[in-house]
Amino acid sequence: MQDSPTHRVVIIGGGFGGLETARALKHAPVAITLIDRRNFHLFQPLLYQVATAGLSPGEIAAPLRGIFRRQKNVEVTLAEVIDVDVAGRRVLFSDGAALAYDTLIVAAGARDSYFGHDDWQAIAPGLKTVEDALEIRRRVLLAFEAAERAIDPAARSAWLTFVVVGGGPTGVELAGALGEIAHHTLRGDFRRIDPTEATILLIEGAERVLPPFPPDLSEQAAVALRHLGVTVRTGTKVTDIRGDGVTVADSKGTEQIPARTVLWAAGVQASPLGRVLEARAGAALDRAGRVIVEPDLSLAGHPEIFVIGDLAHLSSADGKLVPGVAPAAMQQGRYAAELIRRRLAGESLPAFRYQDKGSLATIGRAAAVASIGPLRLHGFLAWVMWLFIHLLYIVEFESRLLILIQWAWNYFTRNRGTRLITGKDILPPVAGEMSERHPSPNS
Amino acid sequence: MQDSPTHRVVIIGGGFGGLETARALKHAPVAITLIDRRNFHLFQPLLYQVATAGLSPGEIAAPLRGIFRRQKNVEVTLAEVIDVDVAGRRVLFSDGAALAYDTLIVAAGARDSYFGHDDWQAIAPGLKTVEDALEIRRRVLLAFEAAERAIDPAARSAWLTFVVVGGGPTGVELAGALGEIAHHTLRGDFRRIDPTEATILLIEGAERVLPPFPPDLSEQAAVALRHLGVTVRTGTKVTDIRGDGVTVADSKGTEQIPARTVLWAAGVQASPLGRVLEARAGAALDRAGRVIVEPDLSLAGHPEIFVIGDLAHLSSADGKLVPGVAPAAMQQGRYAAELIRRRLAGESLPAFRYQDKGSLATIGRAAAVASIGPLRLHGFLAWVMWLFIHLLYIVEFESRLLILIQWAWNYFTRNRGTRLITGKDILPPVAGEMSERHPSPNS
Repeated sequence: MQDSPTHRVVIIGGGFGGLETARALKHAPVAITLIDRRNFHLFQPLLYQVATAGLSPGEIAAPLRGIFRRQKNVEVTLAEVIDVDVAGRRVLFSDGAALAYDTLIVAAGARDSYFGHDDWQAIAPGLKTVEDALEIRRRVLLAFEAAERAIDPAARSAWLTFVVVGGGPTGVELAGALGEIAHHTLRGDFRRIDPTEATILLIEGAERVLPPFPPDLSEQAAVALRHLGVTVRTGTKVTDIRGDGVTVADSKGTEQIPARTVLWAAGVQASPLGRVLEARAGAALDRAGRVIVEPDLSLAGHPEIFVIGDLAHLSSADGKLVPGVAPAAMQQGRYAAELIRRRLAGESLPAFRYQDKGSLATIGRAAAVASIGPLRLHGFLAWVMWLFIHLLYIVEFESRLLILIQWAWNYFTRNRGTRLITGKDILPPVAGEMSERHPSPNS
Repeated sequence: MQDSPTHRVVIIGGGFGGLETARALKHAPVAITLIDRRNFHLFQPLLYQVATAGLSPGEIAAPLRGIFRRQKNVEVTLAEVIDVDVAGRRVLFSDGAALAYDTLIVAAGARDSYFGHDDWQAIAPGLKTVEDALEIRRRVLLAFEAAERAIDPAARSAWLTFVVVGGGPTGVELAGALGEIAHHTLRGDFRRIDPTEATILLIEGAERVLPPFPPDLSEQAAVALRHLGVTVRTGTKVTDIRGDGVTVADSKGTEQIPARTVLWAAGVQASPLGRVLEARAGAALDRAGRVIVEPDLSLAGHPEIFVIGDLAHLSSADGKLVPGVAPAAMQQGRYAAELIRRRLAGESLPAFRYQDKGSLATIGRAAAVASIGPLRLHGFLAWVMWLFIHLLYIVEFESRLLILIQWAWNYFTRNRGTRLITGKDILPPVAGEMSERHPSPNS
């Protein structure tokens, strides 16, 4: 709609990295198009709270158009990028449209990886999208409903067994929240089952949960999980997942575990746009499909293409890989924005340096572990820090206030008000003769 | 699990009527089973706020098990009743199970009626369930996205035309909220379209909107709607609905209106359980499928079966039909509970009398109409009353607080933070060459 030569920046992905790039270019003489398949930015670190009925999707998501309403050099486009015409400097959409760029920022993130077992996906949902979270919520709540209706003890026990595959931060958070639901939230809700008898299994292949954390914090996390009724099995691999249970293997052999609810938190793979950049721009990929980038986050031979966030593979000066966490993506977004600005001014910028602000993981109510430089925290203090940092990062002010109220309410009442079963299958999948089954009258 | 002769009360439906019956039997010597297909009570009067991105589903729903956690004579069962064995006094579930009763309360409510045009349902969703509301939200938000991407002016105009069929309270609320979204919420969100150019049509067959209200309040409502940019067409019937528009007919003839978003608020029909009671217990039905009940809300010839709420057809002493509104259902629930209690004590109860507390309808931000006995209110004062009464009725305390904050926030900022497009189809269904379409740089 206007003459070039305004510098056109196209950003693929409205996650932490893409959002931060666009924001950091607020006062730059560029025209930005932010492309995402979703019309909202999702605060993914709290997605497990939606899955476990603590928060509503609207409380951890902010409409992208609302975020950039006042930043007039940003246009938001709701579309899916499927290809990049590197020579012609255009991105191509699934609907056939194309969009030209002068600089391209690829911040398309990662998705769940089932390590070649794609058939497990339908049985064991992961936790990447709002829809995933609502599906997990539906399955967990329906499992308790099915157990309440089940007559056969073995069937009831399988409905009351929850397996979380993967002991990283997401798996630990999910298992901790499930422990809380079973032991506190649902207490008194049922008449025929005792939710505290639920078995919650957290299965991790490595020798300890939270492998990237210092060993003493892993141990603290395991203690806190056991306190919430979670059975932690480390050094154990899941070798099969079926609708009626999982097969696990450890040093002592294999075992069948009947379980009707299996949740996946075992690994991620990079967005398919990594493969696109490999094919179109000769990018090198690592084993997880991430794009190996230059020290300035650009592609080798293509200074006009940047890859940031979970899709990027970058080693720090000390040889350690920059982790796939929100603070890293945001730092990379700010760096890319600054480099674009400098280039337009004919200047240069030293290589990107990741500043590790530490690691935090929460384990249910009022328990967390934190590793910040030489500092190690666990328990209530770490949880308050986790709460504070996450509230600070939430994009919209209104959401912060609502979440704080929800959390305060949940904390004092152990209530989870959003435990709604919604979607397609809303009835428990069991039957039974109920004629003689009635509650007792009040005495 | 225990010996009869404890009196067994089975309640079908966890809406306003069923909930109130169970609560009013709290201290009665009965064993209650409350059956619902959903695991939550839905505060339906605010469902339009979910559809128009003002509230999250979790904020207007309360888990049934949570409501009755401490009322130990109530058991909640998540199941669908498909038949009643009247002679054997058992209800039959879709999963093959059965449940015996001594007294049966049928409070199964109503659903949308398309007056024989069931093919319209997929094109023009109604507003009865949480899923309906999220579907309407998805369609409305995607329509603006599609308009932003559309190149052909006629296509863009069809995407920016919203038709609400039916000028009762739900239609008026939906149209008012759409007017607010177009004129205020989305202002500044788009770069190529001006959302205030959206056409919002409210089509009503009668000569005025809100036909059950006094004529002067109908007029006030129409004025408030026009103020919000809604085009009100009364005395107009929708004769066809297609994916690309509607056909309307009034006294001057027929007209084709291109529109990609059509919402249905034109009528309801009773639950299919009305037909079951007709077949099994000889119940008489009215034209909308409602069960014509005795003055004590029981079925003729079946004093052990009560029908209450939207499924019941009952004329007041003055010959007027008791309306299908929440206060009427709640009064009937309390009456049925009291009658059960009296019968168990060997006593009787005079016939049910409906106490009309008045009517209220809201029209977007800070505007409403109220008719309370001889009192007529409109504008801000009526809106505050509407707000107050609705907050009072919301079941859970936490929800009240959250909704009040959301409303205060929406009121002062005109923001609607929950405008998330979720579900299956999340991308706008249009394409276009975008190469020359870039935002302007900041000046």
